[in-house]
Amino acid sequence: MKVVKFGGSSVASAEQLEKVANIIKADKERKIVVVSAPGKRFKEDEKVTDLLIELGEAFLDGKDYQNAMNKIVNRFSDITTALGLDDMLLRVIQDDIASVVASDQANELKMDALKAIGEDSLAKVFGAYLASTGTNATYINPRDAGIFVSDQPGNAQILEESFEKLYQLRNRDEILVIPGFFGYTKQGTLMTFPRGGSDITGSIVAAGVKADLYENFTDVDSVFCVNPTIVKQPKEITTLTYREMRELSYAGFSVFHDEALIPAFKAKIPVCIKNTNNPSASGTMIVSERKLNGNPVVGIASDTGFISLYISKYLMNREIGFGRRLLNILEDEHISFEHAPSGIDDMTVILRESQLTPEKEERIMSRIKEELKADTISIERDLAMIMIVGEGMNSAVGVAKNATAAFANANINIEMINQGSSEVSVMFGVKSSNLEPAVRSLYDMFFNQ
Amino acid sequence: MKVVKFGGSSVASAEQLEKVANIIKADKERKIVVVSAPGKRFKEDEKVTDLLIELGEAFLDGKDYQNAMNKIVNRFSDITTALGLDDMLLRVIQDDIASVVASDQANELKMDALKAIGEDSLAKVFGAYLASTGTNATYINPRDAGIFVSDQPGNAQILEESFEKLYQLRNRDEILVIPGFFGYTKQGTLMTFPRGGSDITGSIVAAGVKADLYENFTDVDSVFCVNPTIVKQPKEITTLTYREMRELSYAGFSVFHDEALIPAFKAKIPVCIKNTNNPSASGTMIVSERKLNGNPVVGIASDTGFISLYISKYLMNREIGFGRRLLNILEDEHISFEHAPSGIDDMTVILRESQLTPEKEERIMSRIKEELKADTISIERDLAMIMIVGEGMNSAVGVAKNATAAFANANINIEMINQGSSEVSVMFGVKSSNLEPAVRSLYDMFFNQ
Repeated sequence: MKVVKFGGSSVASAEQLEKVANIIKADKERKIVVVSAPGKRFKEDEKVTDLLIELGEAFLDGKDYQNAMNKIVNRFSDITTALGLDDMLLRVIQDDIASVVASDQANELKMDALKAIGEDSLAKVFGAYLASTGTNATYINPRDAGIFVSDQPGNAQILEESFEKLYQLRNRDEILVIPGFFGYTKQGTLMTFPRGGSDITGSIVAAGVKADLYENFTDVDSVFCVNPTIVKQPKEITTLTYREMRELSYAGFSVFHDEALIPAFKAKIPVCIKNTNNPSASGTMIVSERKLNGNPVVGIASDTGFISLYISKYLMNREIGFGRRLLNILEDEHISFEHAPSGIDDMTVILRESQLTPEKEERIMSRIKEELKADTISIERDLAMIMIVGEGMNSAVGVAKNATAAFANANINIEMINQGSSEVSVMFGVKSSNLEPAVRSLYDMFFNQ
Repeated sequence: MKVVKFGGSSVASAEQLEKVANIIKADKERKIVVVSAPGKRFKEDEKVTDLLIELGEAFLDGKDYQNAMNKIVNRFSDITTALGLDDMLLRVIQDDIASVVASDQANELKMDALKAIGEDSLAKVFGAYLASTGTNATYINPRDAGIFVSDQPGNAQILEESFEKLYQLRNRDEILVIPGFFGYTKQGTLMTFPRGGSDITGSIVAAGVKADLYENFTDVDSVFCVNPTIVKQPKEITTLTYREMRELSYAGFSVFHDEALIPAFKAKIPVCIKNTNNPSASGTMIVSERKLNGNPVVGIASDTGFISLYISKYLMNREIGFGRRLLNILEDEHISFEHAPSGIDDMTVILRESQLTPEKEERIMSRIKEELKADTISIERDLAMIMIVGEGMNSAVGVAKNATAAFANANINIEMINQGSSEVSVMFGVKSSNLEPAVRSLYDMFFNQ
């Protein structure tokens, strides 16, 4: 059986929901459907979840929230009307919102409950629509499905016992439509997941029912092997491993929030990223292991906004604890480093520039001078990182040669190379201004030969 | 003016001392001479310093030390006789030893005083010899020269004020012969320097008198650009910077103990490594800055006996403090890491295998598992590090390309690349079995084109 998740743009309108229904009917293995709240239909459109937050904040500020309420109800009535569904559903939505607002819950619980109404209502609407088309389908509440979470409003974590309960869903005959984004504590309080909530629900359910496949429907045909804003119409990735996806999603590749996939990864459920607007496209498979084809490189990721902190001190490498003390100084400023390659008498720490305020930078620099007695400290800004990713790449002779040749072909100096730390990637640092030509040259080397 | 230092093999015999005298007379700028104790004349020979230690230990164990005493006196009498010097010098040596043994000093101070007698006596003998040949030369005791040190027997550190005192030596007309290896505390107690003692003295004196050049005479013509046991008759290095020397001496290149040169480095005194047995050879200059010739690579260093510790953990890079905690575990075992390149979800730590006992390894592995909750930990043994070194290399486009091509030409997989941390070197990790072919291929690429 397959668990199928549809994102906000896939459920933004009646027209989209009809596509979703067809996708589900096209494969009887698609037994469990996880849906997001209606997203944007056009660029300037508002997401239902944002409207619910707007409503909640208005209420908490003692302001009038009728305007937001109307917008929300209108979004759903557009859908129910076009799908020819009973207006009763609209009243349910209004009642749900009203009862949350009227409840004596703490504010943060109220907000969680409000935010969840987008997914919950859409699931009810879509369940009713599927049924109205003669499909044996029904909405199921996360509590009844068995999604139990920790008592952390807005940041709920799944409880281990949920998976066993979810496995029981296999016994149901009908197609189940589950709202994404939230679960319930053992005490029955609604809690929402952190960022990427509906992906999390889909991933949890897929793991729980031990699905043969977790289909994640978005609005792209597949994952490109390189950033399409840098290389026009790049090759698409047909299959990549969890590790490759993880390395790619680090820099630039944000198909979805990779943490959301952890439950599926742990249960080794294959994931397929597909396009609601072009379901016949094969999409991109994410698996735990893949057969290696000829090309050692599956993708090229890149990102800007890095800086490097260069510290040198004569005889540094005789000083036990130098590197640790340096990282300690960063940690005291709550800064996580990306890489810290070290030489004999020098060490470079690569950070995301966004982490470094002028104040933090000053404190760090002076502490390095005073506490570590460094000979020289220098900061290089506007660095970009480029990562070539591929399973087993580091055991293939010549990959480094071809990659470095690609930089030389573009007459670009490599500021930094980091190979060997990861088994599935090699990282290169270049000046931001060199990022695009470097990526194009690497693409030509590994994908255009 | 020049400060000239001669190592143990350069002063091992009368024949060698005659060469030394000729070297000094050949350049009137050579005004200050620092000498070691007589070293080995042939492979099975004993060093005078070792004989003095033997004598001291025999005495402290309450054993008879006459045998050692005789060997020492014989070494010197061979020299004085062949150089036609007064036997009085031999009595002085015997008296020095006897008085130290008879003194009421603490044992460690006695040992320091005994060890120093090798250099001190040779300086007296050589000073007398120079004078006997009509050269205006004299022995000078480190106390009178102004070498004041901290109260750390066997590990004396120079006191800053010494340099000013040493500067006064410029006013002396005669050639001064200073014994290496030891100095005196402000209270007048003799203390020896740590390993590389005579090099340290020479370096300190050169810095103190602000010498134009510090000539370090050994038994090699110059520094080779690669290990001559791997590449037959490699090119010689005519000039390298302190930084380059430091990086090269890290792995394999042990021309002398690089810490010994710190005083000269700090005072920016150029150092020349020359051969007592072939003084006409130009030798290798070590300077603070050098003009870059065409070749971005000045030398290739290599060393075996490394292992890598690979740790992976999903979402590691979101965990502030992971790297620091890992290094902490190593530090608790008093292990200094060579490099710690990190990927997104993995980190590799390169260590010298000699540091890792089975017990330490077991403790480290289990702590990483338990405290860091790593997903996977693995150790790779028998790694070798190869470093290509050259100033400004990292700003030259194509160096990485040529280097990685050299590995590919030899069909060798690169386990690790570390570029960008040091400005003057790029480090490669390979399996130990691949070290020699890799180094040869790199040599062909950078020195045989």
